Amino acid sequence: MTGLIAVIPAGGSGTRLWPISRAAKPKFLLDLTGQGRTLIQQTHDRLAGLAQRIVVVTGQPHAAEVAHQLPQLQAHDLLIEPAPRDSMPAIGLAAAVMHQRHGDVMLGSFAADHIIRDTAGFRRAVAEAQVAAAKGYIATIGIEPTGPVTSFGYIKAGPRLRLAGAPEACQVLAFVEKPDLTRARAYLADAGYRWNAGMFVMRTGVLLDHLARLQPTLHGALVELAAAWDTDRHEAAVEALWPHLTKVAFDNAVAEPVAAEGGVATVPGHFDWDDLGDFTALASGLPKDRLSNGQLVMGEVATDAPLVVLDAVGNVVVRQANRVIGLIGLEDTVVVDTPDALLICRLHQVQRVKGLVDRMKAQGLDAFL
Amino acid sequence: MTGLIAVIPAGGSGTRLWPISRAAKPKFLLDLTGQGRTLIQQTHDRLAGLAQRIVVVTGQPHAAEVAHQLPQLQAHDLLIEPAPRDSMPAIGLAAAVMHQRHGDVMLGSFAADHIIRDTAGFRRAVAEAQVAAAKGYIATIGIEPTGPVTSFGYIKAGPRLRLAGAPEACQVLAFVEKPDLTRARAYLADAGYRWNAGMFVMRTGVLLDHLARLQPTLHGALVELAAAWDTDRHEAAVEALWPHLTKVAFDNAVAEPVAAEGGVATVPGHFDWDDLGDFTALASGLPKDRLSNGQLVMGEVATDAPLVVLDAVGNVVVRQANRVIGLIGLEDTVVVDTPDALLICRLHQVQRVKGLVDRMKAQGLDAFL
Repeated sequence: MTGLIAVIPAGGSGTRLWPISRAAKPKFLLDLTGQGRTLIQQTHDRLAGLAQRIVVVTGQPHAAEVAHQLPQLQAHDLLIEPAPRDSMPAIGLAAAVMHQRHGDVMLGSFAADHIIRDTAGFRRAVAEAQVAAAKGYIATIGIEPTGPVTSFGYIKAGPRLRLAGAPEACQVLAFVEKPDLTRARAYLADAGYRWNAGMFVMRTGVLLDHLARLQPTLHGALVELAAAWDTDRHEAAVEALWPHLTKVAFDNAVAEPVAAEGGVATVPGHFDWDDLGDFTALASGLPKDRLSNGQLVMGEVATDAPLVVLDAVGNVVVRQANRVIGLIGLEDTVVVDTPDALLICRLHQVQRVKGLVDRMKAQGLDAFL
Repeated sequence: MTGLIAVIPAGGSGTRLWPISRAAKPKFLLDLTGQGRTLIQQTHDRLAGLAQRIVVVTGQPHAAEVAHQLPQLQAHDLLIEPAPRDSMPAIGLAAAVMHQRHGDVMLGSFAADHIIRDTAGFRRAVAEAQVAAAKGYIATIGIEPTGPVTSFGYIKAGPRLRLAGAPEACQVLAFVEKPDLTRARAYLADAGYRWNAGMFVMRTGVLLDHLARLQPTLHGALVELAAAWDTDRHEAAVEALWPHLTKVAFDNAVAEPVAAEGGVATVPGHFDWDDLGDFTALASGLPKDRLSNGQLVMGEVATDAPLVVLDAVGNVVVRQANRVIGLIGLEDTVVVDTPDALLICRLHQVQRVKGLVDRMKAQGLDAFL
């Protein structure tokens, strides 16, 4: 196999979008852009013309819904995690199983719940990343910042690698944590900083070699799992090995240490991208025709009940319950109305929705999460 | 009959408390103080030891619920209006029917949806009002103001009447409209101004004589209705006369013109009183133990779902739906969560809830009113 195998790790609960996004139906299973396709369907659509195979890694609770939403997906390309162990085991499992099945192949990992409208721009960047990956780099796409955003991590790019076929590829000097506003402004002014969209392209052999060095225990377990995956030892191997996989993120396990060694390349992404990480991100991606009575209105379900307002401006109203809503004097607030949960949050505090969910978890209120 | 007949006009839709108060179940039918008794039940309780008879005037849609809530009420003391014609026809009907049944008797009219906790103080004021009424005055209880309130009308009291048994009774110089804040402050500083709580005590003969002079058409119709009320001509008379009754408020039809003639007396009410006219009034009357997570919480129904907050202070949350509610950063706002309607209103704008309801009415959204 010479083409790209696209891996879609479909995990995470998207708690910053509670109560739209729930543990039982997280962000990637929802149509959050009102286009009739869920985020994982849009991700699949975007990769379909680009990758030779598409593989989804998801948790047990969401496997049936993923299969339902992606009827084109081959059953054995749906890799099911019995429990979440963070992103390194998810991507590592896909790499090890693909390596076992197809040998040393090109793998690209793309989140299930991000949005990109410029598919052509996305494809050009992936093609360039594949060139760098073919040279043995872990290649990542760095999105050109359009504002001083504090909710994304950043990639610090270094000198050009002067690769034939990938003229813009640079070495990655470091991965940088989410900055405060002052730093975000400095990063915006510095052409060397790009948004880390968590998109990685690499040969499975390269990744597994790095893992063997950097996370030998995890590597051993993944290789053993992969050897058993398509056999009748599958269940026993998963049961024996999965609970002990090192719980670690891809960035921490591989991307950061390999970057420090000079082994990570980045190509610039000249396309729109958003991780829909909170309600302001969600609202800014909506078409203008969703304005109703001066409020930005979104909702998955049709509702007969009206939204009536007096002197309420700049609010985002997410409607998933068939109730009349009256707003008086409310400003710059997000209102999320669902059948069993109501969230009212000031727009400048939307990043704290995760904290609210954490508090509910601590209080044992799992039924509402 | 020598005792007091108390009339409770139970009308009005309480639109300032939407969506708790609805056309089908207005304010007086609700337990808004969380004491296990609805407002009309509390009103009845307060009058039970004071009046010889209690009469309720209410609209057709609420008659069954009133009868259900007040099992002590005698069936023929529930006077049913086929359609609302404002307060003068309601009180006038009660006066005419009582006059027909019992002769010239003492009548006191008390709203169905106000709250008074100091029942002893209330009774002392009513007793003094009866003394003034026995002398031929229309007697009203003027509540001693406790703040510069702009949402009540005021009574301007004049000289003492020096009545034996009613030492504090004064002549009423005028009824004054709801003031702005500057005027309300001036009224508070002036001992002559009291809140108009709409409580009137008078002999039926005195009231009917005033009506005969001031509203002769209405008077004629009411006397004719009263003559037919307890006969088999009841239905025919109601059908023929009711739709043509002059639609007018008691204050405008009788209290104001008679005050101008010197025929209205006021006695001071030295007791707590509130008309629960909006959500701030409702909240201020709640016991302190209703504070939950820094929010004032009220609700008629029990709810398993929690209220979870981050940095939200000074809000009033009314819970009638079994939903979890999350608040982040919200301040000084009232949130009313009911199964089919959600209201979010800044506390300083609660007087505008009526305007929202009017707008919905204009849009034909009666199903939600």
